[in-house]
Amino acid sequence: MSKEITSREQDYSQWYNDLVLKGGLADYSAVRGCMVIKPYGYALWENMRDQLDRMFKDTGHVNAYFPLFVPRSFLEKEEGHAEGFAKECAVVTHYRLKNDPDNKGKLMVDPDSKLEEELVIRPTSEAIIWNAYRDWINSYRDLPLLINQWANVVRWEMRTRLFLRTAEFLWQEGHTAHATAEEAVEETVKMLNVYAEFVENYMAVPVIKGVKTPNERFAGALDTYCIEALMQDGKALQAGTSHFLGQNFAKAFDVKYLNKDNKQEYVWATSWGVSTRLIGALIMAHSDDQGLVMPPKLAPVQVVIVPIYKGQDQKMLIDSKVLGIVDELKKAGIRVKYDDSDNARPGWKFAEHELKGVPVRLAIGARDLEQNVIEVARRDTKEKATVSLDGITGHVKQLLEDIQTNLFERAKAYRDTHITPVDSWEEFKEVLNTKGGFVSAHWDGSGETEDKIKEETKATIRCIPLDAVEEEGKCIFTGKPSKQRVLFAQAY
Amino acid sequence: MSKEITSREQDYSQWYNDLVLKGGLADYSAVRGCMVIKPYGYALWENMRDQLDRMFKDTGHVNAYFPLFVPRSFLEKEEGHAEGFAKECAVVTHYRLKNDPDNKGKLMVDPDSKLEEELVIRPTSEAIIWNAYRDWINSYRDLPLLINQWANVVRWEMRTRLFLRTAEFLWQEGHTAHATAEEAVEETVKMLNVYAEFVENYMAVPVIKGVKTPNERFAGALDTYCIEALMQDGKALQAGTSHFLGQNFAKAFDVKYLNKDNKQEYVWATSWGVSTRLIGALIMAHSDDQGLVMPPKLAPVQVVIVPIYKGQDQKMLIDSKVLGIVDELKKAGIRVKYDDSDNARPGWKFAEHELKGVPVRLAIGARDLEQNVIEVARRDTKEKATVSLDGITGHVKQLLEDIQTNLFERAKAYRDTHITPVDSWEEFKEVLNTKGGFVSAHWDGSGETEDKIKEETKATIRCIPLDAVEEEGKCIFTGKPSKQRVLFAQAY
Repeated sequence: MSKEITSREQDYSQWYNDLVLKGGLADYSAVRGCMVIKPYGYALWENMRDQLDRMFKDTGHVNAYFPLFVPRSFLEKEEGHAEGFAKECAVVTHYRLKNDPDNKGKLMVDPDSKLEEELVIRPTSEAIIWNAYRDWINSYRDLPLLINQWANVVRWEMRTRLFLRTAEFLWQEGHTAHATAEEAVEETVKMLNVYAEFVENYMAVPVIKGVKTPNERFAGALDTYCIEALMQDGKALQAGTSHFLGQNFAKAFDVKYLNKDNKQEYVWATSWGVSTRLIGALIMAHSDDQGLVMPPKLAPVQVVIVPIYKGQDQKMLIDSKVLGIVDELKKAGIRVKYDDSDNARPGWKFAEHELKGVPVRLAIGARDLEQNVIEVARRDTKEKATVSLDGITGHVKQLLEDIQTNLFERAKAYRDTHITPVDSWEEFKEVLNTKGGFVSAHWDGSGETEDKIKEETKATIRCIPLDAVEEEGKCIFTGKPSKQRVLFAQAY
Repeated sequence: MSKEITSREQDYSQWYNDLVLKGGLADYSAVRGCMVIKPYGYALWENMRDQLDRMFKDTGHVNAYFPLFVPRSFLEKEEGHAEGFAKECAVVTHYRLKNDPDNKGKLMVDPDSKLEEELVIRPTSEAIIWNAYRDWINSYRDLPLLINQWANVVRWEMRTRLFLRTAEFLWQEGHTAHATAEEAVEETVKMLNVYAEFVENYMAVPVIKGVKTPNERFAGALDTYCIEALMQDGKALQAGTSHFLGQNFAKAFDVKYLNKDNKQEYVWATSWGVSTRLIGALIMAHSDDQGLVMPPKLAPVQVVIVPIYKGQDQKMLIDSKVLGIVDELKKAGIRVKYDDSDNARPGWKFAEHELKGVPVRLAIGARDLEQNVIEVARRDTKEKATVSLDGITGHVKQLLEDIQTNLFERAKAYRDTHITPVDSWEEFKEVLNTKGGFVSAHWDGSGETEDKIKEETKATIRCIPLDAVEEEGKCIFTGKPSKQRVLFAQAY
């Protein structure tokens, strides 16, 4: 009858793929590493995007759109940046196909259309944007420049996973320019907080705010701030990053401004981004073996109503009542769907909406109608209750809030019990192998040690938490002195 | 003081570029043929996109997202389609750059990263989407499939113009699948009407609905419907197209469905799109020698308020009044900006907002405050009036509606006087050379004649109007019999 979902215990990775594919969020495409975001998945992304966009605008940012193509020579200008992105990018070398003379009906690259300089599909837009900023910024009056872009980007990843790591993905990238380092750092942290607020309050996923170690920094950044979330299999997922770029890009692209003392100075920069990868985080944080579990604030459909009837007479009676309820719920700003299609039986519909993670399901039959009640089922706890039709809108509204809170609390409880402080290398390995999650441990501060730990355990330093307390200790691996604990985990 | 705008009479084409560049809508980029859409231009596009999106959703469509890349072999599958798009496309041939061993600090294409099959950046997405639809459509229950995509596309145009024709542009593309030809044609016409309603009621640009001749059809379509607008220089501009694709793509990608009689049939298709080109149409339809003129319904800023004061005491008095007005206007759903920056004098601000086409400007000084009045200037007619502060919100609201109506009526009056019926070849050429606009003339129905007329006059058949009346006549060029008039014009 319904679509089979692999259980988490059986095969966590397959469980995830089942949810994405059978839940109708996305599909594989014929293009290597690229996915199709299906209507249900895209509706979720629209809700996420619109909320983030409001938050960006509320913090003074405006949107713009820059070219898809980055000339090769632009990528070269910031050395660290080039190092980080040149090895995984789609390169446009020609601008025309022609009929293949040896193969009727086939096309071939027209060798006469070779570009003088290759174009890279943007893996991120620092280079193309900072080249534009040179013309846009002249004086301190032009600063700060607070611009965001919603766009597709391409990184030629070798191992891809739906939403989590795809060759092409959708994202937003903020690129700001400031007169001083302090202002730029302030912006970097401000946007990190915007991300944390969004992920916690809308996606209902708790995050840890921190700073990346130099090894894990964005290519071209002086500092990378991040929010890290924990998935149900004990692996961490980087949910968003905000970079303090110093004057690296200003120097690479010669972006100066005239300060109040009439002196030319290089501009200070930040960039920050989140992507469709967040959808992967949302799925893995809340869903269960029956399917997706959508946080109410972002759910494409918050409430579904299923009529249970025999014959058209009953159907009409139910319709007349339900259409009023639909109307009332809509007026209350609730995204509701009346699933009265003839194609499927109620049981099939229940399973389908459960699979799709609709937070609240209402079911109503002829007898319910007589008794002026309706069955209310919540997706998160699977509790059912029969409630009066009077005041159903208020009841549903409260329930959506409760579910939102419950999802966050549940994820937070899991996360909090999965931050394990350890003080020995044995313990470190054991926790990673058995319990998973974040391991809070001392580290000597060297990239070399970090690499070795990664080699032996696949765990990386997810971040140095912003709220880390100074504490004398010894590096878990080398025994060298350390002043604070950092968070290790295996990660997506 | 303010930015100089070339007048239309002096150089229409330069006037247009001045508006785009100095009005802050867009900028040239370092990438050939690509533009940067600046924040003010992007805010306009957001308003257009959001309204169109609402209209698409109201007509039952949902959004999705498909890959940027089209494998070469997919493009080959529909012959006419390949013919139309293969010659102007960006081709990805490699997926990696590497350090150039002969040139320190430089990158080069890594020859080891050559793709087995080249990928074309989508010039339009029929091929990639219909390849996905094969898996999505099985039975008549899956139809109709009504999907839209907001995306960037690339067509390697040799001559580009800001917004009107750029190598990369933003657009939406609807791709629908239907059980019958009738339904597909109905959808094609429905979306044409949605476009016409949007362009007329929101952009305030009158359009003629029609059908393209075979010469001007979309590559791969059986019929292309279009809306055609007229610019102030007498040139036509195709503002949107809606294509009936028949079963061409279904056959090319083998997309069949099981009908109610349990038989396999090919699906019927439509596609339809509008792009950032509409911004060019909006600019050229309404603007004047002082700058842009924005239709109120889409203007990023509908009302700007400029304080006129000497000293901070006056400023504070004005502030206290204006902030209340701003609040009231916002509550009425009006996009208002209080331009109280210290950086510029009122005269400069007036010119700047005029250049940017803000529909309504309010100016208020200390004496106005005493008299409880405010100066109201409308951008379209440049009329000024002093009105009471009591009821200013209602006044502004009404004024915005009046301006919206006036812009449409003004453009329509111009358009209507620029549809000239002619019955001789001499007259045809003279009208095109002197008056411009649409020329309504008989045509013998042959593509050859169409080509010759184009060669001699640069005029093309913009469309066969949907409301064309059957009428015996003789082709303007060949004298052969004809049954209806078609609309010729030189076009963007």
